Amino acid sequence: MSSKAADVIASALRARIENGEFASGRLPAERTLSEHYATTRITLREALGQLEAQGIIYRELRRGWFRAPPRLIYNPSHHSHFHAMALEQGRVASTQVIEAREVPAQLAIARHLQLQEGDTVYRIRRLRRIDGRAVLYVEHYLNPACFPGLLAEDLTCSLTDLYDQRYGIRYGGARFTILPGPLPPRAAPALNVASGTPGLLITRINRDQHNRVIDCDCEFWRYDALCVAVEV
Amino acid sequence: MSSKAADVIASALRARIENGEFASGRLPAERTLSEHYATTRITLREALGQLEAQGIIYRELRRGWFRAPPRLIYNPSHHSHFHAMALEQGRVASTQVIEAREVPAQLAIARHLQLQEGDTVYRIRRLRRIDGRAVLYVEHYLNPACFPGLLAEDLTCSLTDLYDQRYGIRYGGARFTILPGPLPPRAAPALNVASGTPGLLITRINRDQHNRVIDCDCEFWRYDALCVAVEV
Repeated sequence: MSSKAADVIASALRARIENGEFASGRLPAERTLSEHYATTRITLREALGQLEAQGIIYRELRRGWFRAPPRLIYNPSHHSHFHAMALEQGRVASTQVIEAREVPAQLAIARHLQLQEGDTVYRIRRLRRIDGRAVLYVEHYLNPACFPGLLAEDLTCSLTDLYDQRYGIRYGGARFTILPGPLPPRAAPALNVASGTPGLLITRINRDQHNRVIDCDCEFWRYDALCVAVEV
Repeated sequence: MSSKAADVIASALRARIENGEFASGRLPAERTLSEHYATTRITLREALGQLEAQGIIYRELRRGWFRAPPRLIYNPSHHSHFHAMALEQGRVASTQVIEAREVPAQLAIARHLQLQEGDTVYRIRRLRRIDGRAVLYVEHYLNPACFPGLLAEDLTCSLTDLYDQRYGIRYGGARFTILPGPLPPRAAPALNVASGTPGLLITRINRDQHNRVIDCDCEFWRYDALCVAVEV
């Protein structure tokens, strides 16, 4: 339960942020803010915590508080890849490969790919940034029969383009499931949040132009980084 | 950060739940569990907290821990209403009206409904249960010009049916936005969770068969109650 004083400060700060104050993106230090609002550090932190939960501000370790950038609009029916989606929205995307290797498929992944548990799959772990901020930790699981030799390619690029240019494989239909849930220990540190922090988990099972299941993506998003939009 | 001991207990408990133990739905008391795993109450609670965050178990005030029921599958492209969606999935839905009245539209709602801020709208607040468990707190905002006299009707029924039968209005297109975020103070207590608990916020702006915007729904879901599925 929140205190009345924290609610009032949260509203006041929210209004200032929405009116365009703190143009640099960085909020004043907690000490400055608690003096400005003539309140204790505890109450101030409660107010900041409310704004953080609403996705209005976020904290960086040892750097303080920042105004959250606009959410990326994620429309499952537009099959554009991450870099294209960011570009269309005037944002700058970048991709870092954390790991790319062959692994035995765990049961859930094997089912998604229509393989047997323990069959070899390619697993690519990548971290994706928008305007320099890590927002998405993703694990791609590929059926290696579709993509021989792929792990030797430059995997910082779009897989969509690589599939098309090297293998003549293009995306067909896809099935998305979207679940709110806690960010697991392998994803949370890369996204600069504590393990167990709420996030959005999007699983995509992708088919190619011949309707074969070719890969599956397990995406772990910062909860304040995107807005899923669906038009029907 | 989680402790190793808690991780091991969480895995063991998860396996037991997935293997169908605790068929009544209720887990043994914390004391029984901590004796069984020869651990402290603190470590046990950490393990239970992990399973809760994963949506595998949930806690009821003063009643203890329960196995979470299966998530409801929510497919934005199937325009079926709440009761029909539950029925198709073999679940029992019920609806409770919390409040139904005229209110002046706040800016965001006015924009959704293509009205002016302060214009009168109908607001209906309802709580929806699946198999007796409160999973969805929803606020419907209706353009009163489309639905004269609607507030006097029985609002525990499907609005979809009421629109059609009394007003000859059927749903056409809709725009969904799906955001993870904290459950606000007006929604959380009805869902038996603390204010600020993560949830899923789904906003639907609905048009009729003539492409007029007729209403907008603000849905606040328990995060462990549903899985959004989209096929493209």
